[in-house]
Amino acid sequence: MLDLLTSALNPRSVAIIGASDNIHKIGGRPIYYMQRHGYQGAVYPINPTREVIQGHKSYASLAALPEVPDLALVVVGGDKTVAAVEECAARGVKSAVVIASGFGETGPEGLEQQRHMVAKARAAGMRLYGPNTQGLANFGTGAIAGFSTMFIEVPPMDGPIGIVSQSGGMSAMAYGLLRGRGLGVRHVHATGNEADVTVGELALAVAHDPDVRLLLLYLESIANPEMLAAAAAHARARDLPIIAIKAGRSAGGQKAASSHTGSLANEDRTVDAFFRHHGIWRVRDPHEQARAAQAYLKGWRPEGRRLVVISNSGASCVMGADAADDEGLPLAELSPETQRNVAAQLPGFATASNPIDITAALLSDSGLFGKVLPAVAQDPAADLFFLNIPVAGAGYDVQAFARDAAAFEAATGKPVAVAAWQESVAEPFRAQGIATFPNEGEAVGVLAQVAQHTELMRRARVAWPALPDVPLPPGQDGGFLNEVDSLALLAQHGVPTVPLRLVRSAQEAREAFGAIGAPVVVKACSPEVPHKSEHGLVALNVASADEAAALFERFWLKMGDMGVARDGVIVAAMRRGRHEFMIGARQDPVFGPVVVVGDGGKNVEAMKDCAVLLPPFSAHEVAQALRTLRIAPLLDGVRGDPPLDIAALSALAVTIGQVIAGARGSIASLDLNPVLVGAAGEGAIVVDALVERAGA
Amino acid sequence: MLDLLTSALNPRSVAIIGASDNIHKIGGRPIYYMQRHGYQGAVYPINPTREVIQGHKSYASLAALPEVPDLALVVVGGDKTVAAVEECAARGVKSAVVIASGFGETGPEGLEQQRHMVAKARAAGMRLYGPNTQGLANFGTGAIAGFSTMFIEVPPMDGPIGIVSQSGGMSAMAYGLLRGRGLGVRHVHATGNEADVTVGELALAVAHDPDVRLLLLYLESIANPEMLAAAAAHARARDLPIIAIKAGRSAGGQKAASSHTGSLANEDRTVDAFFRHHGIWRVRDPHEQARAAQAYLKGWRPEGRRLVVISNSGASCVMGADAADDEGLPLAELSPETQRNVAAQLPGFATASNPIDITAALLSDSGLFGKVLPAVAQDPAADLFFLNIPVAGAGYDVQAFARDAAAFEAATGKPVAVAAWQESVAEPFRAQGIATFPNEGEAVGVLAQVAQHTELMRRARVAWPALPDVPLPPGQDGGFLNEVDSLALLAQHGVPTVPLRLVRSAQEAREAFGAIGAPVVVKACSPEVPHKSEHGLVALNVASADEAAALFERFWLKMGDMGVARDGVIVAAMRRGRHEFMIGARQDPVFGPVVVVGDGGKNVEAMKDCAVLLPPFSAHEVAQALRTLRIAPLLDGVRGDPPLDIAALSALAVTIGQVIAGARGSIASLDLNPVLVGAAGEGAIVVDALVERAGA
Repeated sequence: MLDLLTSALNPRSVAIIGASDNIHKIGGRPIYYMQRHGYQGAVYPINPTREVIQGHKSYASLAALPEVPDLALVVVGGDKTVAAVEECAARGVKSAVVIASGFGETGPEGLEQQRHMVAKARAAGMRLYGPNTQGLANFGTGAIAGFSTMFIEVPPMDGPIGIVSQSGGMSAMAYGLLRGRGLGVRHVHATGNEADVTVGELALAVAHDPDVRLLLLYLESIANPEMLAAAAAHARARDLPIIAIKAGRSAGGQKAASSHTGSLANEDRTVDAFFRHHGIWRVRDPHEQARAAQAYLKGWRPEGRRLVVISNSGASCVMGADAADDEGLPLAELSPETQRNVAAQLPGFATASNPIDITAALLSDSGLFGKVLPAVAQDPAADLFFLNIPVAGAGYDVQAFARDAAAFEAATGKPVAVAAWQESVAEPFRAQGIATFPNEGEAVGVLAQVAQHTELMRRARVAWPALPDVPLPPGQDGGFLNEVDSLALLAQHGVPTVPLRLVRSAQEAREAFGAIGAPVVVKACSPEVPHKSEHGLVALNVASADEAAALFERFWLKMGDMGVARDGVIVAAMRRGRHEFMIGARQDPVFGPVVVVGDGGKNVEAMKDCAVLLPPFSAHEVAQALRTLRIAPLLDGVRGDPPLDIAALSALAVTIGQVIAGARGSIASLDLNPVLVGAAGEGAIVVDALVERAGA
Repeated sequence: MLDLLTSALNPRSVAIIGASDNIHKIGGRPIYYMQRHGYQGAVYPINPTREVIQGHKSYASLAALPEVPDLALVVVGGDKTVAAVEECAARGVKSAVVIASGFGETGPEGLEQQRHMVAKARAAGMRLYGPNTQGLANFGTGAIAGFSTMFIEVPPMDGPIGIVSQSGGMSAMAYGLLRGRGLGVRHVHATGNEADVTVGELALAVAHDPDVRLLLLYLESIANPEMLAAAAAHARARDLPIIAIKAGRSAGGQKAASSHTGSLANEDRTVDAFFRHHGIWRVRDPHEQARAAQAYLKGWRPEGRRLVVISNSGASCVMGADAADDEGLPLAELSPETQRNVAAQLPGFATASNPIDITAALLSDSGLFGKVLPAVAQDPAADLFFLNIPVAGAGYDVQAFARDAAAFEAATGKPVAVAAWQESVAEPFRAQGIATFPNEGEAVGVLAQVAQHTELMRRARVAWPALPDVPLPPGQDGGFLNEVDSLALLAQHGVPTVPLRLVRSAQEAREAFGAIGAPVVVKACSPEVPHKSEHGLVALNVASADEAAALFERFWLKMGDMGVARDGVIVAAMRRGRHEFMIGARQDPVFGPVVVVGDGGKNVEAMKDCAVLLPPFSAHEVAQALRTLRIAPLLDGVRGDPPLDIAALSALAVTIGQVIAGARGSIASLDLNPVLVGAAGEGAIVVDALVERAGA
């Protein structure tokens, strides 16, 4: 990382290949920016047609420089781009930033050229940024190897925020929005096509800058999650929050992303799980990044989610309570003592319970805010404070309100957010450093975001030290294990599975029925018929040995007619649970082992009521994830039913996660459906399972 | 309505009871406003301690006035309020606006005083606004019977928007936000405690103002839906869109609303259904009202929802596509010809399919927008246009883009929305009258809102001319019909119900089994045991006459032990459908007959996967509502299953709606669960039903 930090983000010297004297040109702007923003290193314009460029001596070629520069900014286009990169590599340049587009995003030919440049760079130990990028900018050092016009539109100011983005447009937009809020920004880096360096790696480098206290990312595809995970781990270790956009959430968006940078699509629910797992907060756009920034920089790390709403308007109390509900923040239940203390400050017709309606009495007593806040602050039930001021103006001492709010926040350390749409009301609060928003949705949304993000960042992280060894029975790569082998594999790892026998004759079917006892399930067993119920090869509630024998004959013949491998027929105990769940696991091509747990049965695919978890995870995290399902209300038992054995189901999901992670790529997927879950204490049992071998 | 319009919104004369010479006082501000905003009628300050108030002759009392005023604004507080209202009523004032708080919102005593004022007003034919209100303001006439300070903070301008609000704070906020966008506002009315005139009635009056082209409402409770429905009907008839906030969406919000104005809670899903039914668009807050206003005033009434996204940034194409997906807008599939025409305008590396990425080439060719737009306009697949401009500035001819966009919109009549967060980019578009937003979420959100709202407003409305007469069998008010009587009532109205017999002996149970045929369901029948399965009084899959007879004995004894009325035991055919639905209907205390249709089975209450419909509605509307359920993916059949008979289910829901509406209050509720629905063409059949009589 120190490599990247020194050679790219803090280079001792920068060459501009294709330098221009015109500061409005891409080859001219970086030189102008470096002069303007105090870059202390050497700047080497390379342009054989000029003697001097923007006051710097201009050189004819890289070879003509007095030293090998740390960083080369390649501004020339077309074939010259490739030649310049080759020369940089050959001469020992440490980092090359390639601006030109027309590579990987245009098709196979461009991709080939892009790969060629990376190969040359790697062979020489040079790192490559781009191509198709706006470049890098570090306002801490003035090293600006980029050309964004936004640095002219909105003047830079160094500060505690880092931006790392695939898209130059989005990095410029985030920068502009943050600066518009008066916040300083140090790093504004775009990675473009990510032929070599990705957002993840650059984020890891920026996370090592000790002055950065908030890190904002924009991604269109995640090709390299390990690096992003490493960045997140380093950030968490030093309490550095990361807020990420991952665009291409929808099918249409992924298609557009693919034609934009030639990137592969990520499954969006897995992206969500990845971010959650690593304590990264996901938002939709740079506006959401910018609007929350101040709250993070203030160091808000709330202990809980319980919100107190205070307003001078009854309607705004109602809307504040609605917004709390929208955002999953419970209203703090103030103690009777707190309510008495608050009531003592308020006129008779005001409301002292939460939301606290101090009414238009604020107009006649400007000290009300300052009196009510400390009365509430005593209450341990209050984690977060929201002041909703829909109307104020002539006659209101807004300056006093703002001073009181700031004093309260300073004294208690508890987050205070204000909603005020009138600039005349918002401005005094902003001047006191209070986080101020135009409406309750944004204010409460940011409070909720920081509270939930803090929980994610501080979540206890489990380790799975000794993963089981998972030998598969011999068989063809890419195929399925039959149901008996699949269940046996699970049983080896301690997973409760239904008692069964694999039979190969009617007589064996009778014997199995006798041994297992009525009622039984009879089902065909073939690795080539994974979805046997769709072929009529499952019979439930079989009540006699004769019936079991007859079903054997029928299924055996049917499999023969279908021309599939006949491993036998399964006679299994017929079990019922209180609810059918499913547990799935697969090797994601990008994210590796992924576990899915959710509502089971035949409609799993259609209903998609499941949660995604990335290993390693704890049973507690599974139980939490189950609470996000649509069937969550059923977990506690409905209409007099006992609660379900979520502990057993969660433990089972952990085991499955350990199996797929332990298989180290030999298992492509596991599908356990249904998993019958009984009442608490009754356990969970797997009735059907399908294990898919990894491809050749 | 003309009464309200003339006497309250356009009075010939206004008396201010408690007038003040100080324009900062509540009794002084309305006089100041009327002078300032050109009120042409007579203004009569009433204040016995003054000769002249703000240049008007002041009178000692209402009796001393030269005429009876159309409108009296009652500013005095406490006991004087009631006395003033009594005098206004006695003297024939047509409308009284009562500012003071401390009435219905404070408890039983205040409510009693409030009722007393209304009784006096009604007896005299006087209408009452408030109490606890900021009053009325009509900037078309200058009649300002209100004291909001917002009219000083933000100067008024007459225009095509009307605001009617329970809350004075929210009316002021909506007014301020609209004015901040440069939009003119005519009506700003607050109804406060709504002791007499409600938002619905005042909205109906404002909807009669021919100059009003957009109507914004804020409600905390709907006590009087008929009037609101009448306002909506009148508005639809003249193509006047209504955008409403109904606060108190959450439990916490409803509790706050109740302590704010003493209002009753409305069931929020029924509120949603009510707004949809009447073509009113619901939003969360005044910001959402204001941000969509311009789009409505431009007359956008799109023919469809298919969106074209155009940007100069690949990332913004991706995020535009994601936003379209979020908002339920499909991306328009442009014809090959359109794509060729677009491609002909663009550089080689740009994308001519939708989203259209015109890339940074816009920087060198400012005419690109103007060339691409007409190329797309030819395509009938395009309903809505979205230009996403995340970055522009020096070097971009934004003025040209804005002119091209405006020319395009004028030529095609198709909505064009722009997202541009930079003020320097947004301003030229706004100056051309283009609807301009800070980000894609808002821009696409407003396009989606107007498209969907237009569909709601133009929806063909069904009538149910001849409702069935629904005589109930004799029984006690408030009780339940037993299952046999409940199903019989449905069968009378042509609802398919399961074949059954009610038996009162083991021998009759055997005979019923023989007549119906195996398998059967046996269940206890008592109006006092509506949830019989919770008491073990249901047996499925009964396969023999002996079993049926034994179950009769068991259930008969159990009912005896429970001490409940024993109407008999039901022997019914055992039927299976492809999916179990439920249909419910009830008399809502506010909204009247309400029908609910959704996923059935025992977890209905916990899962709440259902849609609410208000009569009258068509089978088509039921089918549309079913598409909003979480189980919607199952309707078309999953994993090779045939689609479900949604037509039969929808027809059944219409019948149930007609039954509850036809019962005219004699039925409190109907609960049909499960309703078994077969494959398309197989129909739907009701297996269990429970009819509740209305209370005494």
